[in-house]
Amino acid sequence: MAGNSIGQFFRVTTFGESHGIALGCIVDGVPPGIPLTEADLQHDLDRRRPGTSRYTTQRREPDQVRILSGVFEGVTTGTSIGLIIENTDQRSQDYSAIKDVFRPGHADYTYEQKYGVRDYRGGGRSSARETAMRVAAGAIAKKYLQMTHGVQVRGYLSQMGDVTCELKDWNIVEQNPFFCPDADKIDALDELMRALKKEGDSIGAKVSVVAESVPAGLGEPVFDRLDADLAHALMSINAVKGVEIGDGFSVVTKRGSENRDEITPQGFQSNHAGGVLGGISSGQAIVAHLALKPTSSITVPGRTINRQGEATEMITRGRHDPCVGIRAVPIAEAMMAIVLMDHLLRQRAQCADVVSQVPRW
Amino acid sequence: MAGNSIGQFFRVTTFGESHGIALGCIVDGVPPGIPLTEADLQHDLDRRRPGTSRYTTQRREPDQVRILSGVFEGVTTGTSIGLIIENTDQRSQDYSAIKDVFRPGHADYTYEQKYGVRDYRGGGRSSARETAMRVAAGAIAKKYLQMTHGVQVRGYLSQMGDVTCELKDWNIVEQNPFFCPDADKIDALDELMRALKKEGDSIGAKVSVVAESVPAGLGEPVFDRLDADLAHALMSINAVKGVEIGDGFSVVTKRGSENRDEITPQGFQSNHAGGVLGGISSGQAIVAHLALKPTSSITVPGRTINRQGEATEMITRGRHDPCVGIRAVPIAEAMMAIVLMDHLLRQRAQCADVVSQVPRW
Amino acid sequence: MAGNSIGQFFRVTTFGESHGIALGCIVDGVPPGIPLTEADLQHDLDRRRPGTSRYTTQRREPDQVRILSGVFEGVTTGTSIGLIIENTDQRSQDYSAIKDVFRPGHADYTYEQKYGVRDYRGGGRSSARETAMRVAAGAIAKKYLQMTHGVQVRGYLSQMGDVTCELKDWNIVEQNPFFCPDADKIDALDELMRALKKEGDSIGAKVSVVAESVPAGLGEPVFDRLDADLAHALMSINAVKGVEIGDGFSVVTKRGSENRDEITPQGFQSNHAGGVLGGISSGQAIVAHLALKPTSSITVPGRTINRQGEATEMITRGRHDPCVGIRAVPIAEAMMAIVLMDHLLRQRAQCADVVSQVPRW
Amino acid sequence: MAGNSIGQFFRVTTFGESHGIALGCIVDGVPPGIPLTEADLQHDLDRRRPGTSRYTTQRREPDQVRILSGVFEGVTTGTSIGLIIENTDQRSQDYSAIKDVFRPGHADYTYEQKYGVRDYRGGGRSSARETAMRVAAGAIAKKYLQMTHGVQVRGYLSQMGDVTCELKDWNIVEQNPFFCPDADKIDALDELMRALKKEGDSIGAKVSVVAESVPAGLGEPVFDRLDADLAHALMSINAVKGVEIGDGFSVVTKRGSENRDEITPQGFQSNHAGGVLGGISSGQAIVAHLALKPTSSITVPGRTINRQGEATEMITRGRHDPCVGIRAVPIAEAMMAIVLMDHLLRQRAQCADVVSQVPRW
Repeated sequence: MAGNSIGQFFRVTTFGESHGIALGCIVDGVPPGIPLTEADLQHDLDRRRPGTSRYTTQRREPDQVRILSGVFEGVTTGTSIGLIIENTDQRSQDYSAIKDVFRPGHADYTYEQKYGVRDYRGGGRSSARETAMRVAAGAIAKKYLQMTHGVQVRGYLSQMGDVTCELKDWNIVEQNPFFCPDADKIDALDELMRALKKEGDSIGAKVSVVAESVPAGLGEPVFDRLDADLAHALMSINAVKGVEIGDGFSVVTKRGSENRDEITPQGFQSNHAGGVLGGISSGQAIVAHLALKPTSSITVPGRTINRQGEATEMITRGRHDPCVGIRAVPIAEAMMAIVLMDHLLRQRAQCADVVSQVPRW
Repeated sequence: MAGNSIGQFFRVTTFGESHGIALGCIVDGVPPGIPLTEADLQHDLDRRRPGTSRYTTQRREPDQVRILSGVFEGVTTGTSIGLIIENTDQRSQDYSAIKDVFRPGHADYTYEQKYGVRDYRGGGRSSARETAMRVAAGAIAKKYLQMTHGVQVRGYLSQMGDVTCELKDWNIVEQNPFFCPDADKIDALDELMRALKKEGDSIGAKVSVVAESVPAGLGEPVFDRLDADLAHALMSINAVKGVEIGDGFSVVTKRGSENRDEITPQGFQSNHAGGVLGGISSGQAIVAHLALKPTSSITVPGRTINRQGEATEMITRGRHDPCVGIRAVPIAEAMMAIVLMDHLLRQRAQCADVVSQVPRW
Repeated sequence: MAGNSIGQFFRVTTFGESHGIALGCIVDGVPPGIPLTEADLQHDLDRRRPGTSRYTTQRREPDQVRILSGVFEGVTTGTSIGLIIENTDQRSQDYSAIKDVFRPGHADYTYEQKYGVRDYRGGGRSSARETAMRVAAGAIAKKYLQMTHGVQVRGYLSQMGDVTCELKDWNIVEQNPFFCPDADKIDALDELMRALKKEGDSIGAKVSVVAESVPAGLGEPVFDRLDADLAHALMSINAVKGVEIGDGFSVVTKRGSENRDEITPQGFQSNHAGGVLGGISSGQAIVAHLALKPTSSITVPGRTINRQGEATEMITRGRHDPCVGIRAVPIAEAMMAIVLMDHLLRQRAQCADVVSQVPRW
Repeated sequence: MAGNSIGQFFRVTTFGESHGIALGCIVDGVPPGIPLTEADLQHDLDRRRPGTSRYTTQRREPDQVRILSGVFEGVTTGTSIGLIIENTDQRSQDYSAIKDVFRPGHADYTYEQKYGVRDYRGGGRSSARETAMRVAAGAIAKKYLQMTHGVQVRGYLSQMGDVTCELKDWNIVEQNPFFCPDADKIDALDELMRALKKEGDSIGAKVSVVAESVPAGLGEPVFDRLDADLAHALMSINAVKGVEIGDGFSVVTKRGSENRDEITPQGFQSNHAGGVLGGISSGQAIVAHLALKPTSSITVPGRTINRQGEATEMITRGRHDPCVGIRAVPIAEAMMAIVLMDHLLRQRAQCADVVSQVPRW
């Protein structure tokens, strides 16, 4: 209700502010008997972690996650899993510059309007720091999906500014600081980042996520369609302004005869739909794209007002990425995994008896 | 859980198949004391209704909605509102052509995979006929938002194929069969539709929805952001493959210095964000766009398989729109209204005490 | 949220007022492939129906339920099931006696306080007429539980006033108008009813419900325990003031050494717990008891006030049972079945992999 | 879904096992601007704490709660509140006696059946230690209710074995280790406890909770009635086997003419209903009673089986209360406060506009 939870059956509830004592979450609905260690979660947390390269926030924190409950003798017990990450790098700062001013393009103004109070330290609850817990929870979902159904959820940077990156090689994605899947574009990305750093400006990005080996039948008509729930989950990531499933907005100019995915005894002949038909997974790869706006935390001065409504100017100094889209890759993977896991359990509740006679490939 | 509900506090649950006895829904959470008649709902139902023009499905049904409960002496009582529309045009047809065949681009295959059974008559539950109830429920939300806060939720066709339609005049929208806001584009749309009819093909579309006078403060961090819930609601509409808030995917190539909306004592200086910051409404207009795929119900033959996995070919005859995007306009308005209404009530629950000192415009 | 739904996965949402056009509900989460006809629901509706004997309300309505969706070719399709019962006996009455007066012991006063308006005709939404839909929805759950697991949910009248009825013979329960399981008590009940009719007064009752063959493992720690959810469901029945699981309030004076149910290789040696341990079903019979207050719809005059706060006196004439507890038997069965069905699906989602090594009997 | 949450709008989700690293919870939906410190929570935690007197568990832990988020500069911010209590007294014990044996009357057997695995240390998740987080969360609700509406939620021990304790004086409740409201019964309770200690046996108890100054209008028809939600919340407390609202089971033998609460211009003339009519609060005191079974953790040997299904005998040694009902008093208060808080917010969402003309006292 107050919005800090996602998922119906596999349900993640988070807490924590950017510069508070700790971040944490409760992961409810994890089936029993799944081997789980902190190392399983740490891998993705490290991929998302600030300070990983010279292109991302210089906040230096180990982001060490601890499992506080729900795991006994190395396996999940079916009860709620408590996770915590302590904030170790909350430097006692001078916040007078932002305390009474609404940073343009940030949530300062809307939080104040909504609540009448706000934790102004580093954006408080509105900071993307919160996504660390999503990544931790998502890692549990990823592991379960992989173990039980061989599902693989992977993301990559598909565009930054005008530099587009095609999915040429999954192996390259983890070998460069941009999660770029095209070796030929890494220099261009590097150059763009340098230029932005110099200008004190930032740039938008497009991220793509793909889940392979997803069983057919996941997703609930009418409202909780798999694609609708993915749109919800992905749009809930900080800075996201658009979500596409499969061919997305390019369908606007397409004819039905070219857009429909024909079926043969050998399987679907294309995947314009992105793996979802009528809101239900078809067994093809689930494909989603998201657009992330350029961060407003830049040193180019911008006009704004203070809490008294007076005009002022704002420069955001400090540890900030010129492209927040990069670090969104593991976050988007986590969100897709959470949605798939939730729908896998829901499907199991409802249709466990179904022994389909339908051909599968 | 099984997906037939949307909204947390203002909650809509629907039932009904394309060629079943009736469609219906229960609208829960409507505050008491609101004047409400069937005529309030009928207006938008008529806008969505098939058979309205020569460009939309020739199914001829009055789509007459009845209020079965929750309204007494002309006003809502605060209890659940039951709505029903009887299916009067369920011609007893010959379904042998589609009974055992999976229409490509339709939900036939995935429903069969999920449930093991399916109502094949006109797509059964997966048919867009179900959206009639969304429009009826949305009309309640629209009325409440308008009455209590002067909120106006309106949509238009912003693109069909290569024909783009700019928002030139809201008045024109209701005066042409395409919900097109640009008088100069109506001929081009008309021409495109004729051509498609002749070819037996279909085309995609882009629809835009705008809500004005929305109070600041709606939307819940972290997961139930207003934009995330809008993405969910809009992506749940049949055929939608992409959702954008504000500038959407165009932010990918934007710099932070151009994308952030600066603030002055006179208000925001632009609305790239589409009225949402940090997932919370800013008081600016809420702007969303959606991409709708071209319908797969066309007479151009397409390859597919039957339930036995054998290759076959499919032609969809009968009453079908060459552009399903047109009728999505009132549906998209309904979905946005449902989400806004839900968040208005949620905000009221949580923050009724907030007396903000923040400047508002 | 607004309270007209019960269940998480097997979810029932109802609408309708005592003297409105129709009662209805949507049953969501029914697995596909279950044979279902209107006759399956009608049996329990007839057991609950008013006018069945000279001891219950003389309202004469067939209470004929119609299935509007979710069933195709005789089996459930997995989509939402719409049910409706039209109110045929809404005699156009003179309501001036109750329109502005709060009947003592009724919800008139609290509805008015909550909503500011109320449908005063026959109690509107607060009338027990609403329970007809519970019985219809519960019949689906009963059928599913019976078909898939052989679960049998049955209730009986265990006490009326000072007349206690022991569970001597299940067969007798359906053969007398009181759902009394003890043939020797039927005359005493009959006599008590006659006396009450003469006095124009009413009496309280105790109802018991038993579910046999319930699989072990249903119920979720910590809050959604099976017994907690049963308490919720049973307490939500009109006029219920107390709920017990197993030995209930008699445990207050018991020692641990007598109350615990010992276990031997042949099974549990007693069932003081009522089939629930730590909120989870043990495989023993689930046993619950409920206390129903005497209805306040009596002809003995009672003091009250009108909407203007002035003192007045109230007599409730018309069609009323001297003991509403009798008709609560099928309602209580329905509520227990709904809860068990919901938890069965939830357990399946979460623990489908569990292959227990634990001894079962 | 997996059961570790309670409440819809004011929502509490807990984690933690008896002998795990820590207990914790997330409290979501707390309105912003409420002064809150750890001391506000500690008071009730200390009342519930084991080792408080010679009659309760000798587990010696400070149960020191920490607020990890959601509070900034001394007031709530409207975002989720993370709470944690570290388990400091997890003595590394020898669990071989209970590891493979199902303690009769405990959840060992059912957890094993449900999950296939279980944390056997001190009962794991099924231990009443989990209720510490309920008390912490409930303290937030209590404070809010008190601050904003002057609501006071208080409980007492109303019976232990055959010793009944009438509510003679609220002041005495906090001045004796039994939460007994009748000074004359303290010796009898003391004597009973001594006897039980000697015998190694335990006894059941009845606890009562009363909320005063609750506004009229809380509770949602039809399923989420205030009394139904109270029944759920109270029955979810470990060892509870029965719940009554107002006169509870004594209504079974009552006539309508004596049980209904008459109304005069001066207010209700009695409170048999316990403050709830038609599931909605009437403005009178909310009164509930609960029955707690005698704990099965006793030294009187009991028959049971091990995981291999072989017969064995069980004695529970260690730190155990002869009457777990005593410590249930602050837990029951917490649960009632959580339910009232939740319904207060829900009512505000739905009916904020209601300006009732109805007389209130």
